[in-house]
Amino acid sequence: MGLYVQKFGGSSVRDTERIMNVAKIITDTYRQGNDVVVVVSAQGDTTDDLIEKAKEITENPSKRELDMLLASGEQISISLLAMAIEKLGCPAVSLLGWQAGFNTSSAYGTARIKAVKADRIRAEIDRHNIVVVAGFQGINRYDDITTLGRGGSDTSAVAIAAAMHAERCQIYTDVEGVYTADPRKIANARKLKEITYDEMLELATLGAQVLNNRSVEMGKKYNVEIEVLSSLNRVPGTIVKEVAKMEKMLIRGVTKDTDVARISITNMPHTPGVAFKLFSTLASHKINVDIILQSVGRSNTKDITFTVSKGNAQEAVDCIKETFDVADSDITCDTNVAKVSVVGAGMESHPGTAAKMFEALFEHDINIEMISTSEIKISVLIEVESADRAVAAIHKAFFPDELA
Amino acid sequence: MGLYVQKFGGSSVRDTERIMNVAKIITDTYRQGNDVVVVVSAQGDTTDDLIEKAKEITENPSKRELDMLLASGEQISISLLAMAIEKLGCPAVSLLGWQAGFNTSSAYGTARIKAVKADRIRAEIDRHNIVVVAGFQGINRYDDITTLGRGGSDTSAVAIAAAMHAERCQIYTDVEGVYTADPRKIANARKLKEITYDEMLELATLGAQVLNNRSVEMGKKYNVEIEVLSSLNRVPGTIVKEVAKMEKMLIRGVTKDTDVARISITNMPHTPGVAFKLFSTLASHKINVDIILQSVGRSNTKDITFTVSKGNAQEAVDCIKETFDVADSDITCDTNVAKVSVVGAGMESHPGTAAKMFEALFEHDINIEMISTSEIKISVLIEVESADRAVAAIHKAFFPDELA
Repeated sequence: MGLYVQKFGGSSVRDTERIMNVAKIITDTYRQGNDVVVVVSAQGDTTDDLIEKAKEITENPSKRELDMLLASGEQISISLLAMAIEKLGCPAVSLLGWQAGFNTSSAYGTARIKAVKADRIRAEIDRHNIVVVAGFQGINRYDDITTLGRGGSDTSAVAIAAAMHAERCQIYTDVEGVYTADPRKIANARKLKEITYDEMLELATLGAQVLNNRSVEMGKKYNVEIEVLSSLNRVPGTIVKEVAKMEKMLIRGVTKDTDVARISITNMPHTPGVAFKLFSTLASHKINVDIILQSVGRSNTKDITFTVSKGNAQEAVDCIKETFDVADSDITCDTNVAKVSVVGAGMESHPGTAAKMFEALFEHDINIEMISTSEIKISVLIEVESADRAVAAIHKAFFPDELA
Repeated sequence: MGLYVQKFGGSSVRDTERIMNVAKIITDTYRQGNDVVVVVSAQGDTTDDLIEKAKEITENPSKRELDMLLASGEQISISLLAMAIEKLGCPAVSLLGWQAGFNTSSAYGTARIKAVKADRIRAEIDRHNIVVVAGFQGINRYDDITTLGRGGSDTSAVAIAAAMHAERCQIYTDVEGVYTADPRKIANARKLKEITYDEMLELATLGAQVLNNRSVEMGKKYNVEIEVLSSLNRVPGTIVKEVAKMEKMLIRGVTKDTDVARISITNMPHTPGVAFKLFSTLASHKINVDIILQSVGRSNTKDITFTVSKGNAQEAVDCIKETFDVADSDITCDTNVAKVSVVGAGMESHPGTAAKMFEALFEHDINIEMISTSEIKISVLIEVESADRAVAAIHKAFFPDELA
């Protein structure tokens, strides 16, 4: 008994059948004696369809008007879901972002939640209503509608859970939880019962796109217990919390990220400030750099290699050429790479994790091109062709098949 | 030079091409040095499609949630139209009903505008923005979204024009103005240059569905000059104002209304209060009665005949049977009728209008079953099969073909 925040993504409400299924989950929770606040995204491909409509009119719609347009998507899904809940015999009320008290920054398209003034939500809960809130949207201080960017509904849900001190924030998706590897590719990938916020952040960044990163950061900041689970069955999912039971697992998961490009610059002058100038130039172009590797070359020069996302690769190369006097032959960009990582807080206290990972790659004849480590993560850059084999090999090394 | 309010209906913005056409009309008005506030409806069949979605979930959606759902339609059209205006190089900002200050009663689905607090609109005008406002919607005192009912966008436009003391409120539709008869049926139907509010109200009620009645009433109350014109060409339309030039016309138009049912009750006791009880019973069922005819029958009974809209006919018959002890043979309901009317303030000072109308019907052998008159209108009830012939005959009598 307590307050539950339940978030449903676009695919969970894409048609009438799915909406009724979601309404059943919600009313079951309510009938068990809980208060329920629901956060919902736009149906299915609605957001993409609306962007398409805007593009028909202009290639560069103003961000304010685009947010006005996109926010209509959740308006449709919240009202339909409230009707479905009422049809199942429970009282419901839908609220738009501004009605639910979502005050955001003014950055249209990528607004940040500044406060959730949850008075209205509280009043509706006091009237025993199930409250259905539009995710992804809010208003700025000009009373204009803003959106939080892709995956923003997760953040909306965690923000409400934080503001209302909910028992738990349940994020319903089309997967059953967080797995040790992509279950579509690794047959014996295991669902985790629990995982820490930091581990979840590493996994999300590394391509296991289950939870939006900002929502995990907010969950960590306000200590909101988040559960990732499927709307298509009724089995427990994975709980994200501060201290997770280790379940005797050294690592939480193995992930692959193919949105990586490796840029190498050779023959840079070996003088102080070169690296600073290089990476501050990239930062000023809002290009995020991931793994960095620097080595001293011959004759007082140095080589710098780093990775960026594929979408930023060309811009990175261009701005380096502009800023530094590098010859074309001295700069290379390789998009034929992938980053494979193992994540887990357990590795801190278990030496040998890296060795075990590298051994698995060696046994499968996979060449490591770069290595990066953090307290809870080890990443290697390899050829993209070997990525799936690498994940399978590493997963098998850490999670030997129990049936074998 | 002044402030123009321009309203565009759903068919005027149904696709990208139409939206760009509308944006051109708006920016042309703006570039002539005028301030422009635009009111727009949901695109094409959006409202019907949304109702269809709701019906898939439940036959009886709550009115609050239905309003929440429907209001998304204008949100899409205002943002797209604002983008189109910006694409044509003029500054624009879209506003939802609540942002534009539309405060309404709480009656979801049929809300009345209580006030337009136009501060935000004024501020945007001061910033030289073209303001694109969502028609049809507002918020009630609980901050919940309401809609004004079908045709409500006309009322939204006139309400803004009244609040802002606009030069003129232009209602763009797919017809070029108000005609002396339905131009699709009467070849030489003439477009009126001007018409009074009262004449327009009679014409609207009688089936010439050009302007929403409430908007005309509001225009009359606040003396807003309304122009009805087409968004598909650039010719002057018909202006609705308090004192219209008579253009030497006796009448303004001839209309046909087939949404009529005639109910006759015979052998009612000829005692005081019978008619009162009958029509107050119907009023308590919210059934509007139009033409009423009462005659004293034989042996101290009376016969009462009246018309209602077809949709109310069965309910009217049922509630009469419940309230009065009438035999089945004493009550008849005839839906095979039509009401044909002539409207025009000119007939007040011109005796013989009725005679001219009846003569035209007589010459075409059309039998009149009931007659009703007001200061600016004469209506007759006839067989539905003769309705189109009757309109043509009457129109010809009052507007003889100049080329003939």
